[in-house]
Amino acid sequence: MDFNLAVIKGDGIGPEIVDEAIKVLNKIGEKYDHKFNFTYVKAGGDAIDNVGECLPKKTVEVCKNSDSVILGAVGGPKWDDLPGDQRPEKALLGIREALGLYANLRPAIIHKALSEACPIKKEIIGDSLDIMIVRELTGGIYFGQRGYRDGKYGNEAYDTESYSEMEIRRIGKIAFDTAMARDKKLCSVDKANVLESSRLWRKVITEMSKDYPEVELTHMYVDNAAMQLVRNPKQFDVIVTSNMFGDILSDEASQITGSIGMLPSASLGENSFGMYEPIHGSAPDIAGKDMANPIATILSMAMMLRYTFNLNKEADDIENAVAQVLDKGYRTVDIKSEDTKEVGTKEMGRLIVECL
Amino acid sequence: MDFNLAVIKGDGIGPEIVDEAIKVLNKIGEKYDHKFNFTYVKAGGDAIDNVGECLPKKTVEVCKNSDSVILGAVGGPKWDDLPGDQRPEKALLGIREALGLYANLRPAIIHKALSEACPIKKEIIGDSLDIMIVRELTGGIYFGQRGYRDGKYGNEAYDTESYSEMEIRRIGKIAFDTAMARDKKLCSVDKANVLESSRLWRKVITEMSKDYPEVELTHMYVDNAAMQLVRNPKQFDVIVTSNMFGDILSDEASQITGSIGMLPSASLGENSFGMYEPIHGSAPDIAGKDMANPIATILSMAMMLRYTFNLNKEADDIENAVAQVLDKGYRTVDIKSEDTKEVGTKEMGRLIVECL
Ligand SMILES: CC(C)[C@H](C(=O)O)[C@@H](O)C(=O)O
Ligand SMILES: CC(C)[C@H](C(=O)O)[C@@H](O)C(=O)O
Repeated sequence: MDFNLAVIKGDGIGPEIVDEAIKVLNKIGEKYDHKFNFTYVKAGGDAIDNVGECLPKKTVEVCKNSDSVILGAVGGPKWDDLPGDQRPEKALLGIREALGLYANLRPAIIHKALSEACPIKKEIIGDSLDIMIVRELTGGIYFGQRGYRDGKYGNEAYDTESYSEMEIRRIGKIAFDTAMARDKKLCSVDKANVLESSRLWRKVITEMSKDYPEVELTHMYVDNAAMQLVRNPKQFDVIVTSNMFGDILSDEASQITGSIGMLPSASLGENSFGMYEPIHGSAPDIAGKDMANPIATILSMAMMLRYTFNLNKEADDIENAVAQVLDKGYRTVDIKSEDTKEVGTKEMGRLIVECL
Repeated sequence: MDFNLAVIKGDGIGPEIVDEAIKVLNKIGEKYDHKFNFTYVKAGGDAIDNVGECLPKKTVEVCKNSDSVILGAVGGPKWDDLPGDQRPEKALLGIREALGLYANLRPAIIHKALSEACPIKKEIIGDSLDIMIVRELTGGIYFGQRGYRDGKYGNEAYDTESYSEMEIRRIGKIAFDTAMARDKKLCSVDKANVLESSRLWRKVITEMSKDYPEVELTHMYVDNAAMQLVRNPKQFDVIVTSNMFGDILSDEASQITGSIGMLPSASLGENSFGMYEPIHGSAPDIAGKDMANPIATILSMAMMLRYTFNLNKEADDIENAVAQVLDKGYRTVDIKSEDTKEVGTKEMGRLIVECL
């Protein structure tokens, strides 16, 4: 099969980690007789410096016309002093909106070989964890009206959180379907004791559960969820929540794994179209030094093969190759521990390709 | 001195834990020649059952006319099926608003004697932690307009987050002053890369820092803060943030201490007026069984003496008495571990009074 992929290498370590991910894809292509065609486009700081805006029209067009998008990482201190609407992060929000990527899937997984890195005590975490956080990504307070207006205490800055039934239903469907393919437990997180949008969220998700009788649905307030992720993270299978709460809880959960350099993500739109990227940032301090961990990006390719192209065997292959390399004791510096062999970005990529 | 205190015992374990706190206050009164006068009023489920509404007018009036308010805990499954605006939690939000309690101070402290209970690994946490979270409590999305309206995708539920400069400035003042009395480090948490209200928040807090040249001010995005609390909580001294972010982060931080039954809180208004309560809930499952831990409520009394009445010596006394009883190995069941002596609610109260 032929696949057309738009590639945004981005800033900092973005280019290096994407290069390794592409080698992995090409190897999968060889092995299974797929052809991956890559079109390189710019976004973030790279686009600001070279095109004068963080998300050029051409980038959006190429992405829209491709089968899937690969993103490295965007942003860095170099562009931190630009006004908010011209900063690299704006490219992220812009592309999510332009491509309609309403569902963010963020696994929080502890690989057995890396369980020592987990900041939570062994009694609580054991040696594994496997949570999938499904975050709504194009609605809520991220995309509502905002600005200044006259308020109770004079001029005030405001932002609007809002959800329609349609938006809740479509993210709910992804969440229930995800739960069905896993341990059939779904926890919907909201703040229904305060927010109107959360009350609608809870109502719609509860209604939907009738169509998924096998899924055990629970509801949890966001403050409690933030506690439970620390107290007993293993109680969770799939979590579904709003854009803002998902931003916070998915980062908390990823930190609980202790290995942020390992975590991939998928942002899905209609018809399985998706953008795939590591959850970590652009790490400008180690950029260009062959030190970055490419595994999160490589595992994002596995998610792409699985979610957008339905190539489960190929996805399994990548995940197994990563596990093998870890089992052999190879580590980039961010995940290194005693008795392991430190390798650079390129060598880590090569080792994974070799295992394929 | 004479102090007039409004007391809301509330639901579940509320009455039991408040009773012990009152014994402690009376002992302090004896020792230092203060007189505490208590007026008992109802709120929450207790008020729903007995007066027909969760926050009777009389309760608000008595509270307003007192020097300070003591609250046990409100809510429970018994009232969970009532419509949102009649649920016990509404009493909490209502009383915060009616009394103008705009600043919520929530310490996340690990007592040396209880450091084993911390879910975070020893390498990270050592044997102590002392963070103060200052949460804005009467503004933001908790108190903005909400409802239903026509949106991009039809009918939508919405909520409004808003902050005026005045609101940010007054919570900022509490936070900077708190930092000055501690390690002089303040971390302001927002989501300024997305929210207009956060951008104003950051701007005002940054301006204020000119008046506090000794305080080292940093800014952190809320998603990163949720991570850092797990990764390296000891980096924090004082955290200041909005109502919604504070709800989430203060619960996360409290769970990181591992001993929720130990944590007090203060909700402050103008002129040092305040409401004092444990951060834990009403725990209906153990209500009336002499099993509840009264320490969080007792430590809330220490906060009251310190913040509202400026009686620092008296406050220290209570905190020292609690530490002594813990050092002697006495524990309620929630904080019990090997080689400690289990005691009930009443006995724990008596032991603390005895140490005063
Ligand atoms: C950069 C920022 C706007 C973004 C978000 O808040 O969505 C990031 O934190 C993320 O989670 O992808
Ligand atoms: C009960 C609820 C409305 C309340 C809040 O969100 O403020 C509680 O979680 C708290 O933190 O005191």
